[in-house]
This record gives sequence, structure tokens and C-alpha cells, in this order.
Amino acid sequence: MAVAHFPCIQFTRVTPKGSCVFSVGNYSRSNYKRRYLVLASATKLEENFGQSKVETLLNSIKWNEKGLAVAIAQNVDTGAILMQGFVNRDALATTISSRKATFYSRSRSTLWTKGETSNNFVNVHDIFLDCDRDSIIYLGKPDGPTCHTGAETCYFTSVTDILNDQQAEENKLALTTLYSLESTISQRKAELAAPQNGKPSWTKRLLLDQNLLCSKIRLMRYSGREEADELCRTLEENEDKSRTASEMGDVLYHALVLLALKDVKTEDVLAVLRHRFSQSGIEEKKSRKSHS
Amino acid sequence: MAVAHFPCIQFTRVTPKGSCVFSVGNYSRSNYKRRYLVLASATKLEENFGQSKVETLLNSIKWNEKGLAVAIAQNVDTGAILMQGFVNRDALATTISSRKATFYSRSRSTLWTKGETSNNFVNVHDIFLDCDRDSIIYLGKPDGPTCHTGAETCYFTSVTDILNDQQAEENKLALTTLYSLESTISQRKAELAAPQNGKPSWTKRLLLDQNLLCSKIRLMRYSGREEADELCRTLEENEDKSRTASEMGDVLYHALVLLALKDVKTEDVLAVLRHRFSQSGIEEKKSRKSHS
Repeated sequence: MAVAHFPCIQFTRVTPKGSCVFSVGNYSRSNYKRRYLVLASATKLEENFGQSKVETLLNSIKWNEKGLAVAIAQNVDTGAILMQGFVNRDALATTISSRKATFYSRSRSTLWTKGETSNNFVNVHDIFLDCDRDSIIYLGKPDGPTCHTGAETCYFTSVTDILNDQQAEENKLALTTLYSLESTISQRKAELAAPQNGKPSWTKRLLLDQNLLCSKIRLMRYSGREEADELCRTLEENEDKSRTASEMGDVLYHALVLLALKDVKTEDVLAVLRHRFSQSGIEEKKSRKSHS
Repeated sequence: MAVAHFPCIQFTRVTPKGSCVFSVGNYSRSNYKRRYLVLASATKLEENFGQSKVETLLNSIKWNEKGLAVAIAQNVDTGAILMQGFVNRDALATTISSRKATFYSRSRSTLWTKGETSNNFVNVHDIFLDCDRDSIIYLGKPDGPTCHTGAETCYFTSVTDILNDQQAEENKLALTTLYSLESTISQRKAELAAPQNGKPSWTKRLLLDQNLLCSKIRLMRYSGREEADELCRTLEENEDKSRTASEMGDVLYHALVLLALKDVKTEDVLAVLRHRFSQSGIEEKKSRKSHS
């Protein structure tokens, strides 16, 4: 979908007849940088989905007494909840047409597109409504850190840490299992670089011994089976499902250690997979170089 | 943390002094099943974190004019957003002490613990606050489907599908990349079982040919290198980071096909990894059977 960007022009609302109303941005704001504001073209919107369909959709939302619904921006690759705000009809209509996560600011009584000051837009791939139609997910890819503090997401304060007085001052993002493991491995790598390199750990041994790590991932010709091979054998020898889950855990863990050594993020791997989705496997296979 | 369950007793609020108020549940409700309600013990709460710390934390939340904040329940393993509700002081205090995701019902003006009627509790592992302290994540593990419709999450309505008239009636969960790939592979497997098994696809070829699949995952002794080996070589031969991401994508994709054949969910693999976190890698390694 073509999206035009113009600095300093604020999209404010879609009229009932589908025209768009814009106002000139405020130059005098102290935090004013280069503001890229998304021009949502009513013509585009009509062309793409038909105005009436969007209107019908907007009418189906259960807006609260202030005309708002909750909107949650989520990273399409990692699942991280980036931020949460509120939307009114115009904010949702703008997001549908511009594909940039747009909210309604309750304090400033105006629309705002995440990224309009920081350039860290959230590029929306799809929008989901909940069963009650009063809560919305913007599933998208952020251009950079989403929080105004510079953190990747706005959720970096752990209640458990606060209540246990554990590093309450140190930011700890709300991470799900895979990313929590990735983060732990990164910490181990950082500890190795420090003068006192902390407690011994299996992860550190793997990080220090590339041969050991690679032997764990692939089949060693003479010294027996390792992770990738063991995973296959759970299928071939019809082993327990729990055994498959455990072996797959081993493959994932060791592969994450390798990624850490290469400074590659799981998120980058998932982005590769996402880009491949748009082609069928056979087409995709053909389009890539032959591996062997 | 010990949590007592009693049917038909409704926890309603914590008084300013930390006592808990309970009321007897309503037997006459037509949808009444066996209601398990969480008894949050104020004594427990005090024992665990100290009442004053919890009070200080609750005072730090930016409650809205109705004394509420947004709370989002997220699956700790998959990152799926399960549901979104609102919390008041008592709902958050209850969640902190009971570790069962608890909300405030605006329509019924009462606390409710997700799962109190369905038994599908969301077991909260940690709680995160956003930078503004007016939005909360309950990061936890659901006992079963979270939505009252029986869907895994409440977000199964895609705006893009609605606007494109594509299977608007068919529920499509908001899935992030890994789970979207998992879902596509499951669909291919289901197509194979159907009389007309649809378009050819690489995934179907792999699902039908176990030897081909396993040869893709592990090193084949005589016929050259495959995925797990190629991933290692990106490290050993200092190849591009993009090459590592691509090879890791291959490993993940082929492993997901194997998991589909074994009917093992990615979520189960992540749960295995999460359980291993609580031990150091070396301890964990020792505790498991020697593999070779």
C-alpha cells in the first residue's frame, strides 16, 4: 500500500463522508524534531477496501463512553508487547489506511502516530479485534525502540523485582521464554568479557569452545550422536513426545548460543522466516542457491 | 506460593488495612458451574513481600479517574496476548498474592479471577508495569483456552480478513511469526489427510518423506552437509551474519515440520526450556541422563 509522508502536517480526522482533515503541526514544541506524519488518503482507503466496509467495521467496535478502545502494539516477530494506548474511530481508520500504528492522545486530545517524532514507526501487518470488539492488537514491526525512554518496549518494570528489592532500579524487559533465554546467553557472553567472569556455567563453556558447541549441534562422525541427530531419532524410532520436546529444546538452546557468538538476534531469524512465507516452499527453494 | 481454593466464595476486596473481604457466590446464575475462587490471604501477602511494599507499589500506579488501569494477560512461553481487561487496586493486589490473573469487571462492579468459572486460570509468573505506570502485563501460563468462546485467545478477528472478505467467518488467531509458521505447517499436514490434498508444497513433501526431512536436519555422512551442519559452518568459516540468520531459519523450519509430525507444539518445547532455566546449565546437564 502506497503511503505518502509529509513533515509537519497532522492528520486529524476522517469526516463521515470519508474526507480527511489535516492541520499543520506545531513547530514551537520544544521536542520538535523532523516530524513525519502519515497522510491517510481517503481515496486510497476507498480504493483499497471500500469506504463502506471500513465504516461498517468502525461501527462494529464497542467504543467506550469517550469513543475510545484499547490498542496494543505487538512485535509481529518476537511477540513483545511494545506499548499500549487508546484509539478512537479516526485513529483506527488512519492505522488501517497508513499501516503505521496510530493512537488517540487523551492528554492532548489529538491523534498521534507512534514514530512521528522519533521516526520509530510501528509498521502494522495486521490488526486484530477481540471477542468483545473493545480491544485491538496492532501486530507490526517496529523501526526501532518503541518507548520514549529509548527502551525496546514500555514494559521494563518487574513487580517481582520491586517487591523483592532485586535490581529494582535496573530495567528488565518483559521477555517471553525464548527471548529470556537469549538474554541470559547474552549476559553470560558479557560476563566472559569482564575481568572477573563470574560463576562457571555450561553456556560459558560452550561460548568459549566453538568445537564443543558445533559438535553439540551437528552429528559428530566418530563420537556418536548429538542434538540435531537425536531430534531426528525421536521421529524415526517413534520415541515419546516429551523426548521430542526435550531434544528440540537442546537444538534451540545450542543454536541460540551460536547466534550469540555471531551477534545474530532471534528476531532477525524470525524476520527471515516471515519474508519466506510470502512464497510457497517449493518456489522459495527454487529461488535460493542450491546448498550442496 | 500456597493458594487455597474454595468453591462459591467470592473474594471482593482488600481493605486498607490488608484484611480480605469475601462474599458467597451466586448459585442462581444460569451459567453457574463449579466456581473455584482464589482466596488471597492478606497474611500470605504480608509474609511474602511486606504489606507496606505492596501498598507503595499500588500507590505508584497511575489509576484513571475510575481507579482503573489496563491489564494485558500474555502467554509467557508463546508471547500470545490472551486477553485484556482492567484492574483496580484490589484486583492487582489479589493477582500479586494469588498469582492468578485477576481483573475488575466494569459491568458487574466486582473482581473476577480469569478461570473462576472455566478453571482455565492464567498462572502469573511476573507482572510488568509500563513507563507511565498506567498499563500492566500479567505474564503467565494459561491452564487452557482463555477466551469465553473456547478460543485460545480473545483476538481471533483479523481486520484485513474482514476488509478483504477473506474467510471473515473463519477464526484466525493473532499469531506471531513462529506460531504462524507452525500453524501453516499444521494446515499442510491436515490437507494431506483430506481426499483432495490441495496444491503441492515443499512442506508436504517433507511431511510425506521422513528420510528427506531427517536428512535436511542432520549431517548426512556421505551426501554432503545439511541444515544443522551449515549453521555451524557460518560460525567456523566466519560467514556473514545474514547467512547465519538464514541457516538458523532453515533449522527452525525443518525442526517445526518434525514437531508437526510428532504432534509436539512449539509451546511445549519452550515450556521445557523455561523449566530448565531454574537450574544452571552445568547442574541441569548433570541431572540429565548422559546422551552418548
